[in-house]
Amino acid sequence: MASPLPALHRVAVIGASGYGGLQTLRLLQDHPALTVTFLGGERSSGRHWSEINPFLPLPGDPLVQSPDPDAIAAAADFAVLSLPNGLAAQLVPPLLERGLRVVDLSADYRYRSLARWQEVYVAEARQVPRQDADLCAEAVYGLPEWHGDAIRTARLVAAPGCFPTASLLGLLPLLKQGLIETRGIVIDAKTGTSGGGRAAKEHLLLSEAGEAVAPYGVVGHRHTSEIEQIAGQVAGREIQLQFTPHLMPMVRGLLATVYCRLRDPGLTAEDCSTVLRSAYRDAPAVTVLPVGTYPSTKWVRQTCRALLSLQADPRTGQLIVMGAIDNLVKGQAGQGVQCLNLMAGLEESAGLPLLPFYP
Amino acid sequence: MASPLPALHRVAVIGASGYGGLQTLRLLQDHPALTVTFLGGERSSGRHWSEINPFLPLPGDPLVQSPDPDAIAAAADFAVLSLPNGLAAQLVPPLLERGLRVVDLSADYRYRSLARWQEVYVAEARQVPRQDADLCAEAVYGLPEWHGDAIRTARLVAAPGCFPTASLLGLLPLLKQGLIETRGIVIDAKTGTSGGGRAAKEHLLLSEAGEAVAPYGVVGHRHTSEIEQIAGQVAGREIQLQFTPHLMPMVRGLLATVYCRLRDPGLTAEDCSTVLRSAYRDAPAVTVLPVGTYPSTKWVRQTCRALLSLQADPRTGQLIVMGAIDNLVKGQAGQGVQCLNLMAGLEESAGLPLLPFYP
Amino acid sequence: MASPLPALHRVAVIGASGYGGLQTLRLLQDHPALTVTFLGGERSSGRHWSEINPFLPLPGDPLVQSPDPDAIAAAADFAVLSLPNGLAAQLVPPLLERGLRVVDLSADYRYRSLARWQEVYVAEARQVPRQDADLCAEAVYGLPEWHGDAIRTARLVAAPGCFPTASLLGLLPLLKQGLIETRGIVIDAKTGTSGGGRAAKEHLLLSEAGEAVAPYGVVGHRHTSEIEQIAGQVAGREIQLQFTPHLMPMVRGLLATVYCRLRDPGLTAEDCSTVLRSAYRDAPAVTVLPVGTYPSTKWVRQTCRALLSLQADPRTGQLIVMGAIDNLVKGQAGQGVQCLNLMAGLEESAGLPLLPFYP
Amino acid sequence: MASPLPALHRVAVIGASGYGGLQTLRLLQDHPALTVTFLGGERSSGRHWSEINPFLPLPGDPLVQSPDPDAIAAAADFAVLSLPNGLAAQLVPPLLERGLRVVDLSADYRYRSLARWQEVYVAEARQVPRQDADLCAEAVYGLPEWHGDAIRTARLVAAPGCFPTASLLGLLPLLKQGLIETRGIVIDAKTGTSGGGRAAKEHLLLSEAGEAVAPYGVVGHRHTSEIEQIAGQVAGREIQLQFTPHLMPMVRGLLATVYCRLRDPGLTAEDCSTVLRSAYRDAPAVTVLPVGTYPSTKWVRQTCRALLSLQADPRTGQLIVMGAIDNLVKGQAGQGVQCLNLMAGLEESAGLPLLPFYP
Repeated sequence: MASPLPALHRVAVIGASGYGGLQTLRLLQDHPALTVTFLGGERSSGRHWSEINPFLPLPGDPLVQSPDPDAIAAAADFAVLSLPNGLAAQLVPPLLERGLRVVDLSADYRYRSLARWQEVYVAEARQVPRQDADLCAEAVYGLPEWHGDAIRTARLVAAPGCFPTASLLGLLPLLKQGLIETRGIVIDAKTGTSGGGRAAKEHLLLSEAGEAVAPYGVVGHRHTSEIEQIAGQVAGREIQLQFTPHLMPMVRGLLATVYCRLRDPGLTAEDCSTVLRSAYRDAPAVTVLPVGTYPSTKWVRQTCRALLSLQADPRTGQLIVMGAIDNLVKGQAGQGVQCLNLMAGLEESAGLPLLPFYP
Repeated sequence: MASPLPALHRVAVIGASGYGGLQTLRLLQDHPALTVTFLGGERSSGRHWSEINPFLPLPGDPLVQSPDPDAIAAAADFAVLSLPNGLAAQLVPPLLERGLRVVDLSADYRYRSLARWQEVYVAEARQVPRQDADLCAEAVYGLPEWHGDAIRTARLVAAPGCFPTASLLGLLPLLKQGLIETRGIVIDAKTGTSGGGRAAKEHLLLSEAGEAVAPYGVVGHRHTSEIEQIAGQVAGREIQLQFTPHLMPMVRGLLATVYCRLRDPGLTAEDCSTVLRSAYRDAPAVTVLPVGTYPSTKWVRQTCRALLSLQADPRTGQLIVMGAIDNLVKGQAGQGVQCLNLMAGLEESAGLPLLPFYP
Repeated sequence: MASPLPALHRVAVIGASGYGGLQTLRLLQDHPALTVTFLGGERSSGRHWSEINPFLPLPGDPLVQSPDPDAIAAAADFAVLSLPNGLAAQLVPPLLERGLRVVDLSADYRYRSLARWQEVYVAEARQVPRQDADLCAEAVYGLPEWHGDAIRTARLVAAPGCFPTASLLGLLPLLKQGLIETRGIVIDAKTGTSGGGRAAKEHLLLSEAGEAVAPYGVVGHRHTSEIEQIAGQVAGREIQLQFTPHLMPMVRGLLATVYCRLRDPGLTAEDCSTVLRSAYRDAPAVTVLPVGTYPSTKWVRQTCRALLSLQADPRTGQLIVMGAIDNLVKGQAGQGVQCLNLMAGLEESAGLPLLPFYP
Repeated sequence: MASPLPALHRVAVIGASGYGGLQTLRLLQDHPALTVTFLGGERSSGRHWSEINPFLPLPGDPLVQSPDPDAIAAAADFAVLSLPNGLAAQLVPPLLERGLRVVDLSADYRYRSLARWQEVYVAEARQVPRQDADLCAEAVYGLPEWHGDAIRTARLVAAPGCFPTASLLGLLPLLKQGLIETRGIVIDAKTGTSGGGRAAKEHLLLSEAGEAVAPYGVVGHRHTSEIEQIAGQVAGREIQLQFTPHLMPMVRGLLATVYCRLRDPGLTAEDCSTVLRSAYRDAPAVTVLPVGTYPSTKWVRQTCRALLSLQADPRTGQLIVMGAIDNLVKGQAGQGVQCLNLMAGLEESAGLPLLPFYP
């Protein structure tokens, strides 16, 4: 008798026309144990998938459906939401009530405190009244390398932002082990334009963003508080850091260059890399490079892998922590699937691409 | 009687096939008072210009000549050298002996101390024995906004590196006024590939560098010491800072994002911008943007303008100093012409493009 | 007594926020005899220029004004219109009535016959009722190398499209001399994204258009009929050709590769290049490259120069005609200024950049 | 009892440091039934894989070995050669003698006639004396959609060039059915820079090739004769066509836009698309798009899929055939694996990516 096929878990993908939904759908096409059984979208509702995305044929060319909670619940066990901030919080409660387990790619449940979310996402908070402080407290921050156990049993997972993912993976082990000062951390981050989404905006036109590098959101970018929240939890004390994103003339890829101070200036990059390697020994999606090898975003393009590298400067006492990811995969949809894998009791990296097609 | 035409100063451009020489030649085509009278090159010697660069027709399609000091001296009053590090130091002494005034685009005379140069450019120093410590001490660092008077009368000007230019223009007024801490300065810099020159190297291929962002030279990049030397002179004390360059998937442009700490945390970005504006009131090539407007490298593409912008974070006490330049113009050849202008008694910005063709 | 300054002609630029208006303004900043005296725009009316385009400082930071014909007439002698198709035709008649001479960058007056325009621009024709068939017949097609005399005295000049410019400059001398068959001409054209304008559209996002090459408007693109009209006039017979544009992952630049058949298969590329050189002997903006040197769009980036090159295949009897321009300069605003120069009695290339800053 | 694992076929990959070898290795990492058992290279011999390509971890981090035929034969059943033209022909005979079956990615065996190869690859022929005319005659042209049966049993498969693949897939069914004229075919092709390989060349630098589009190899590019040979075999008569490649500012992707004349001008694009769909009904790697949907190279990036689309112009009688592929996958290494699959009796598309990660 042949070995049984793995049971297929049914997944609803909501928000099918944006990059987050599109990536999720693409990843699930290759997945051995998760299958898309509901395709939801607001703007594209009622249209065949192939009309919107002729480049990604889906079996049966399904209709995009209106995201009705009952219909979703009838079709799926899990839901991945790729909706604008504020909108996810309207769909999550009815889905949880109907027994679905949800991975939300928006920022709506990334803060333990609803009040904090309302401070940071003030425009969205004005438009969308929310009373789900309990869900904010319940939701698990979907960084599998740090919250894997909680993700496995979670009803609601808030997938991290792309910048926090690239920044935190390198920082957290150092903070946990107390190797670096908690003050004065600087994160200089560089992202491809796809981080800005698929909706047409002038500054994301190739004509504008091509052949150009520029900072934006200097001081006060929303991901600052998200990084600080998680870093503070691991460090066991409040953390205030400087985060500056920059827009790069490329489609995909995100690099965080993090500057911090070694508490013991005698520590070498090799010492600290050992700590990182130990922290990620069992993490299939994180690789620590040899000291002196620096990560290119190209090395993780279209993979769910994070590449980390450390360098220390004995002159200045600073440690430079570099983290490269694909902003749409490990920084968004791939990490969402990584969470789904854990929630469904599968291998963490099931169905996820980890090796790049270079160049 | 018609007003007399401006007297034309005769300029030799040596190193005509690389980007530095090419930019210099291009800029001088539009110049009202400087004219190219000698075109020198090692590899391309004996060939007609149009064979090497069919896209830039030069009047008379001159032959590229071997850089013989006597021939250069017979033809020109000024020389711009765009040669590999180490080679410039072989040509400069004979040119000065013959009465030419020289702008050197290499790093050979950027350090006051020959010994320091030999430490930093150790590979070049091994190949090229130098005994011109006196010239190192005499050479003027060619940052016109800071050393204009010395440049006017100099025999030998060492044009700054591209990273130092973008980093120092923002930092120096703050250091001079004592507004920022001299410790803990972090410079995160981003450059287009043309900074790596025109010689074919695998990592600069479009296939490799396209759709990729990566750090390089982390800890110990040579421009670190160059920046520290000039910053220390202005600050009046030794400065050690962290400098990390990153390669961007674009042809031209350089952005330096500098992180430093305000000595008086009560100072605002507006206050500090006022200091910068005051410092550059008479500088035609430097513009300080309004607070909240952040510079794109695209805004200075193919211009000799540096755009500066400041933002302060009262939470962390940090000041973020942003400087954008075109690495080949204000970062190299344009700055060289700016120096030539001063040396020749012309207006500082004569013949230099200051407005971009956007997009 | 000093020689008199050239008289300044006053120019109104209408449509200041798009690329056409922006390029026109930029070009006129460097112009010795044309000066911008009115800055008009619909969407941006009432705002200071620096709010919209902080990267291009204009003297006095003018307010963008509503394009009122009386106000324009009071301020200017010439007007350059950079408006969407259909809208230009509403402003041109009142401007002409008030004595202005107009260069229109839209397609509204590119056809001698209004009926033809209404067939080709059917959507615009539905929205905008036009009764200016006389103006269509009067307007001069603004290709200075072919209609220079008519442009000099014209009240209304319709600047050609970018694709027609790159295609026609190579084709017309060959058609005029009867060197090529008039049937079976194929134009395969490649354009940067700025040809699609500055308004945000999804397919022009860097995320979409980056790392991508694709055809569009296959069969029936509007520029087909524009090319055919002018080619037919010169050939003296109706011409039907195949025109296929492709979108390139770059900001600026346009290359037309034209395939046609030699009537006399014994003719060489050198023979035909001689004909082209002769046709453009006095044309400052057109250069014919040596046979075997093929034009890159980069060689004309941000210049008003067209580079042409021919190659013949004795095996197949075909002649390949290559034309490269900057789509926003020689393909749009620069050509508009070239027309203005002629209309104002100036040198054809006054104030126009003809040499590239390579790379 | 569990179902048996598929038997693993042992594959040697020779030429590991170039893009062809690298892609082959990457593709085989995901393959269910082919496994790399020998890693050969000339320049990189004796080095660990991770030193050359730190971004693609291979199990066991193998040493790159000198391509000794005996060692290869001891380790592998199949060999994929990714070597410069001329060098492959030195290794193929000894490998065949030792019983290996070979897929050669070079041009050495693409012509049935050695004499023809020596005419086209004249420089290589001078350096490398060859006497393997019999192997040229025996080798199968590795276009699986057309030579699948022969590939299955072949000892030696010559994988097609990237341009021929994109051009022929659309043309061949039309030629076979006699739908188009065999004279006057024009192929205008556009390729990313990775088609030029990984060896450093000035014109492939990002600084040179970025923001640039240019033709090259106009008239007489080597792929012309390769396309003509295969097209002529299918058409049953000699074919002479015009092929012009263009270099695009992107890493990967190749688009062929083919212009030909319908023999029956009454045929529609729909009619012809039906013929193409029928021809590729069972071809997993070829998709014919709906009429009016035009392929972007981005839609096949990092896949082994070819996208075809047709449009007809009843006015001119021309048919436009568009074919998009990834030049390194369907245009090179992926097609090589597709051939290996057939040779090993596996499913044609085993282990091959067919869906893109968009954007």
